[in-house]
Amino acid sequence: MTLGEFEFIERLLRPLAQGFPGSLDLGDDAALVDVPEGCQLVVAKDAIVENVHFFSDDPPEQIAAKLLRVNLSDLAAMGADPLAYLTMIARPASTSDQWLEAFVSGLAEDQNRFGIHLIGGDTVATTGPLVLSLTILGLVPRGAALQRRGARPGDLVCVSGTLGDAAMALRIQRGLAVPEEMVPPLLARYRMPVPRLALGRALRGLATAAIDISDGLVADLAHILERSKVGAEIEMANLPLSEAARGLPGARLSALTGGDDYELLFTLPPEHAQHLPALAERGGVAVSVIGRITAEPGLRVLDANGRPLALERTGYRHF
Amino acid sequence: MTLGEFEFIERLLRPLAQGFPGSLDLGDDAALVDVPEGCQLVVAKDAIVENVHFFSDDPPEQIAAKLLRVNLSDLAAMGADPLAYLTMIARPASTSDQWLEAFVSGLAEDQNRFGIHLIGGDTVATTGPLVLSLTILGLVPRGAALQRRGARPGDLVCVSGTLGDAAMALRIQRGLAVPEEMVPPLLARYRMPVPRLALGRALRGLATAAIDISDGLVADLAHILERSKVGAEIEMANLPLSEAARGLPGARLSALTGGDDYELLFTLPPEHAQHLPALAERGGVAVSVIGRITAEPGLRVLDANGRPLALERTGYRHF
Repeated sequence: MTLGEFEFIERLLRPLAQGFPGSLDLGDDAALVDVPEGCQLVVAKDAIVENVHFFSDDPPEQIAAKLLRVNLSDLAAMGADPLAYLTMIARPASTSDQWLEAFVSGLAEDQNRFGIHLIGGDTVATTGPLVLSLTILGLVPRGAALQRRGARPGDLVCVSGTLGDAAMALRIQRGLAVPEEMVPPLLARYRMPVPRLALGRALRGLATAAIDISDGLVADLAHILERSKVGAEIEMANLPLSEAARGLPGARLSALTGGDDYELLFTLPPEHAQHLPALAERGGVAVSVIGRITAEPGLRVLDANGRPLALERTGYRHF
Repeated sequence: MTLGEFEFIERLLRPLAQGFPGSLDLGDDAALVDVPEGCQLVVAKDAIVENVHFFSDDPPEQIAAKLLRVNLSDLAAMGADPLAYLTMIARPASTSDQWLEAFVSGLAEDQNRFGIHLIGGDTVATTGPLVLSLTILGLVPRGAALQRRGARPGDLVCVSGTLGDAAMALRIQRGLAVPEEMVPPLLARYRMPVPRLALGRALRGLATAAIDISDGLVADLAHILERSKVGAEIEMANLPLSEAARGLPGARLSALTGGDDYELLFTLPPEHAQHLPALAERGGVAVSVIGRITAEPGLRVLDANGRPLALERTGYRHF
């Protein structure tokens, strides 16, 4: 690495701040953010670590995109519109200028795609692996944020897109042999998750609870159940699988327990079921009903014959 | 480490979120923050790394306090009032529960002292050293934030407190022999900087530019000069030294170029000089005039005889 911190900020990061006056060109101690009247600020902070959340030889552009997108997914889960972000980059001395340039170009491409700007952050040296943290800021009309609490008995349990693809990608990287043409679409799902921002926005005022699936369907549904003090019943046969994953060994189990899909999981009162096609249309993604909320606590997963599965075998941890 | 991420958040971090409803008990994907009408949000993000910014055997409570305070100091430099914070903790497997508990108790004590709450963040595993990042949120009346741009020829250059203490503490830790009674006060300045929040607030509407001294007086004054497109002349003899540092070898050079003091450096139009005693009173800290802003660009440091020092020898880098 030959770029000093000063040059790194000046030459590579400053252009990412252009167009957001409150970034003060990354030249001050903090950024200034205006929150329009009637809006609340939504803020989240998620980090990724080399060899834990990404591989050293993953393309830097895709690492940047993943960092940004896992945070944007938190905004999607709250029904918020993205506004701006701050980064923390702890880089080992071995980080090359080329790596940093590619990483920043990944940020640049995605911030254009999602209409946001870099407004601050910190770059520090570390003797360990690369650690990347991002703070995302969004806006939501006051009181309209989706939360994990709020699911009620009778509500439909819904998910966007397909489940288990990212987990299958990880299994492929660990040696699972699959037909060659299946690899790129599954790997893309792991490396470049798509934050469901349009769907989250469309769910305002309709969904009673929402979360993004980062830890796996079972674990993340458990968060909704715990916060809402309800139970749920879901049907294994209704889990949406991608064409690439369908037919591969363990695809259904991956859909149930695999993480990193970053799809939205939400609950919808049955009287809003009529809106499902419009939600999918506005969200730009398929939406599937996979079960329903019950007054009886706990999560029951039913197999194709309506028999409950033993969840201990699926990695489910009781709360 | 035996605490899982879930227990760590549930048992240790959640209590820090009590009292801030928008934290949603750290149980959602993001936090909700209300920004009162007429206010702007001020946001900064600073990280510290084990063996780079703190030592492995520093007391965890003091590491927590330093992490929080370097970020609070950014708010002070902008004249903002602290509101809330988010943390990112990348911890090696060797981090003990006792260490985490002590770290969290340090956060707890300081968040009470400064009237803020933890509202979110992330805890991740790393194979390297501990990396701690914090995002601080503050509020400032719209348009009242202090910035680095704005200094004008004729303005007084002022600093709070004393300079060079943290740098002397580092030199002591690296082997400089000093009288025993000098060690604790200097070490405290390095480990537990005091964010000059009250002074920052008092400077709203008076100071033309401000910054906190983290990289050293010369480097940080250079930031103000660059952003304000002016120069400055400061007098070595006017640099405020602490009783502990005064008389130690290299104290004046440390005051000029040593970092980590987290005092405020600001510029004040001469017609406001009359307010200096009131500013010190309201800020709860001494304020010294160390020089003045000039139309001629560049920084000149004058020795006791009014002769300019060769700044190359002080680590000053021309911008």
